Amino acid sequence: MQAIVLFGHGARDIRWREPFDRLAALWRTQHSESAVELAFLEMMEPSLEQAIASLVAAGATKVVVVPVFFGQGAHLRNDFPVLLSACQEKYPTIALSATPAVGEDLAVLQAIVDFGARALIS
Amino acid sequence: MQAIVLFGHGARDIRWREPFDRLAALWRTQHSESAVELAFLEMMEPSLEQAIASLVAAGATKVVVVPVFFGQGAHLRNDFPVLLSACQEKYPTIALSATPAVGEDLAVLQAIVDFGARALIS
Repeated sequence: MQAIVLFGHGARDIRWREPFDRLAALWRTQHSESAVELAFLEMMEPSLEQAIASLVAAGATKVVVVPVFFGQGAHLRNDFPVLLSACQEKYPTIALSATPAVGEDLAVLQAIVDFGARALIS
Repeated sequence: MQAIVLFGHGARDIRWREPFDRLAALWRTQHSESAVELAFLEMMEPSLEQAIASLVAAGATKVVVVPVFFGQGAHLRNDFPVLLSACQEKYPTIALSATPAVGEDLAVLQAIVDFGARALIS
């Protein structure tokens, strides 16, 4: 089974995660053949390792981690590769990879521009 | 003149702002009739007040601030309204408003899901 992890920063305010829950729900509706888990760098659970453990327990053999961050700062350039390679060591038999941050994707940026343009007109 | 401020968190790593610069460039290409400025909550400049000052100096009479955040945590629920109302007090003649965080927009979330789905297939 293929699976995806939507990996966010985390925050103290529990309501901060609402869009992440909505993302996971969208994924489940549209891509039910692939499992999805959320994971957070800090202040929220599950951690990346906990999320990957759940997916492996559910039978995932290929896991792609999508960093739901705008920019690729120190967290993604320094902390994230270390976390990811620790997970790969712990689960050597799965194919584990990561995409760039979603803020690197032109379609995501375009959706933000369109959102701003609609707000300016209204 | 109408104008937009793309308001992000900010980070120590200067490369973190690259997607924000790309967003502003997209805006300028597609919506050249409306000025755009970036602004950051912390660790990067300009501040929200500096960005609004620039836009007012350039002739903006209506400014919409778009929080380029995924979740609406303490930063957006507590810090941001205070900043925004201080700017409105400083520039009482402009129409100043804000949208919800871009992570509240379904089209933005959909673009993220699509990005993940493409990564899983490839």
